[in-house]
Amino acid sequence: MFGARYLIRALRPCSSAPCPRHKPSARLSVRDALGAQNTKGERVKVQGWIRSVRSQKEVLFLHINDGSSLESLQVVADSSFDSRELAFGSSVEVQGQLVKSPSKKQDVELKAEKIEVVGNCDAKAFPFKYKERHPLEYLRQYPHLRCRTNALGSILRVRSEATAAIHSFFKDSGFVHIHTPIITSNDCEGAGELFQVEPSSKIKVPEKNFFNVPAFLTVSGQLHLEVMSGAFTQVFTFGPTFRAENSQSRRHLAEFYMVEAEISFVESLQDLMQVMEGLFKTATMTVLSNCPEDVELCHKFIAPGQKDRLEHMLKNNFLIISYTEAIEILKQASQNFTFTPEWGVDLHTEHEKYLVKHCGNIPVFVINYPLALKPFYMRDNEDGPQHTVAAADLLVPGVGELFGGSLREERFHLLEQRLARSGLTEAYQ
Amino acid sequence: MFGARYLIRALRPCSSAPCPRHKPSARLSVRDALGAQNTKGERVKVQGWIRSVRSQKEVLFLHINDGSSLESLQVVADSSFDSRELAFGSSVEVQGQLVKSPSKKQDVELKAEKIEVVGNCDAKAFPFKYKERHPLEYLRQYPHLRCRTNALGSILRVRSEATAAIHSFFKDSGFVHIHTPIITSNDCEGAGELFQVEPSSKIKVPEKNFFNVPAFLTVSGQLHLEVMSGAFTQVFTFGPTFRAENSQSRRHLAEFYMVEAEISFVESLQDLMQVMEGLFKTATMTVLSNCPEDVELCHKFIAPGQKDRLEHMLKNNFLIISYTEAIEILKQASQNFTFTPEWGVDLHTEHEKYLVKHCGNIPVFVINYPLALKPFYMRDNEDGPQHTVAAADLLVPGVGELFGGSLREERFHLLEQRLARSGLTEAYQ
Repeated sequence: MFGARYLIRALRPCSSAPCPRHKPSARLSVRDALGAQNTKGERVKVQGWIRSVRSQKEVLFLHINDGSSLESLQVVADSSFDSRELAFGSSVEVQGQLVKSPSKKQDVELKAEKIEVVGNCDAKAFPFKYKERHPLEYLRQYPHLRCRTNALGSILRVRSEATAAIHSFFKDSGFVHIHTPIITSNDCEGAGELFQVEPSSKIKVPEKNFFNVPAFLTVSGQLHLEVMSGAFTQVFTFGPTFRAENSQSRRHLAEFYMVEAEISFVESLQDLMQVMEGLFKTATMTVLSNCPEDVELCHKFIAPGQKDRLEHMLKNNFLIISYTEAIEILKQASQNFTFTPEWGVDLHTEHEKYLVKHCGNIPVFVINYPLALKPFYMRDNEDGPQHTVAAADLLVPGVGELFGGSLREERFHLLEQRLARSGLTEAYQ
Repeated sequence: MFGARYLIRALRPCSSAPCPRHKPSARLSVRDALGAQNTKGERVKVQGWIRSVRSQKEVLFLHINDGSSLESLQVVADSSFDSRELAFGSSVEVQGQLVKSPSKKQDVELKAEKIEVVGNCDAKAFPFKYKERHPLEYLRQYPHLRCRTNALGSILRVRSEATAAIHSFFKDSGFVHIHTPIITSNDCEGAGELFQVEPSSKIKVPEKNFFNVPAFLTVSGQLHLEVMSGAFTQVFTFGPTFRAENSQSRRHLAEFYMVEAEISFVESLQDLMQVMEGLFKTATMTVLSNCPEDVELCHKFIAPGQKDRLEHMLKNNFLIISYTEAIEILKQASQNFTFTPEWGVDLHTEHEKYLVKHCGNIPVFVINYPLALKPFYMRDNEDGPQHTVAAADLLVPGVGELFGGSLREERFHLLEQRLARSGLTEAYQ
């Protein structure tokens, strides 16, 4: 179907537990169990990993997590269930009654009638300890286990929700989703930073190149989307993109995900900025409302204050200033910049940060950049000596440039002039 | 945000048309215009490409398509609008009143008040001709234009809908979406068929390898998902996958999209088969109901009869037979096979086709394959001399094997035995 193969596989975690079948209790995720309204002692089955064990004289408290939510489900069991195997990190299946919790800490809890250890965990040898917060550098050493921590679990749930929200936003706005090629022979951004693709040395290929031409990993789906936008008025892609940048920084990744969209018959930058603002707000609102606990965790430990900043951004309309206004604002700033702001020179990170702060920590579109700073295909504003093009970059507090876009030059004679000026006429002919 | 950069760009197709702004008429996609109920002469604006021109004495008929649907919108204009520029392939913006059509061929039509040519097309030089059906081999020569044809347009719309349906199915079923890495150092499927990734020769890298180890394009996200399923009970990925298979066939692609899922705490193959059947039926039903015209076109010209076959599959529960039963059925068949069916030997395409037909052209799960045919990690059924594992492959009419999956061996002593038998003990220690 659609040139694709589909695989489904399943994993039963560790241990030699028997394979019980056809049980009467309904299987419930921790998220669904926690969200159950008016519980009347329904018999359910919950499966997951033990996050904490508290053994009292007559009662045993377990907290079970299955990755469906940050919060764990409290299991209350008779102390006769207590065993060495019920340890932090072990995977268990608990059957019992879902009841209203007498404690104020949670709404519901599971009164255990049967607890089965599916996979043992030697809590002493396990690299993560109960109730300890491990630094990310430490977690890095355990890529096969780190997703069991609160931090990584939350980030992955947020990423999953954001991905779904981006797909939904474009679908609901009438865009057609296009899988642009990953292996390609074109270099959209121009020169350098490319990964080349060759069959591994194990394979013998008769031709010089497997694909007849040198092949690279995509740096952008733009050229493919432009072709598509000659038949579909609204298209988007959301896939992996690659840069062979040999630098170790938070802003440089060899592999990352990028949303790209093309709209035909656009009449003004306003049309584009509406899509950018809509996408940002929809994705952000979805994450805030679907993952409130995960966002709270990030707010508390990973990016303090970020939630309030996001809510502030959502409440306000984004601002629009021209590049020329931006330079004026920077020139009048009392702050000393490392790079002196000057018309015709690109904005540096320090400038972007200042502009966003100046605008009250609301995302701001900077539009109409100098023609000389932008690629040949951006639409000429034909605005006299200070020559600009119809481009818009969105600067976001705490991030910097998040989106970039432009109207495309469609006037043939102007394109010819630009190509000639860039010395590209020959390549084009 | 989320390690990704987002770009939005826009294209204004060809020609030196002016840039009109702030028009009063509501912009409508062709799809929305066609679907308008109880039209009362609303003033709207539609943009797209001319699919046909029919000039009569007093009236001019245009058909406009914008990729939002297979069907085009009929524009009715006074003959005074007639001009050489209104040609097949030109892009136009039409303003006018959306009215009920007097013809039975369509429900609505657009009574033009203003027609603006946005981009000219020289219909004589244009490689596709009005009303002509061009073979796919011919279209291949025009990758930048072929998406304007009915066939390619329909396929891309169907693919877009199917992609969205797959994402929705998993989201609605509580799965967490994981972007598994594209560049990886592991070779999940084992040996050969890999693409190696290196920075292009333009870049100088101090180390021997850019990533310190040889890096390849992923052949499967399985190992990464297995790690994730140690923290999330349900995960899936849906991304590009690569094989450096040096063969030119409809069944071999260097780059293709694959859905992979992992479920923890699975109790039987039944749990897996439910997901597979659900995914197949949900995705298929979504496409059939959201793209009826596109499906009809494929049904008519590309895959005759496929729509009826699909509807037949949707109406019935999928069948389940064991590998052993499958071999028995094949042995009793009156048909002569090129490869004699025999217990312990893999099913060939001819066998799969026969089995599907034998089962009344309904998808059929073949389960419990010989242990010797499957990878070491599949769960041993411990079923005596005819030793099998808990694996399930879904055979689909017209496709063959569409899904494959298995329970994983979780019993440590059995895994050790299997590794020893495969001569893998050393690699594992």
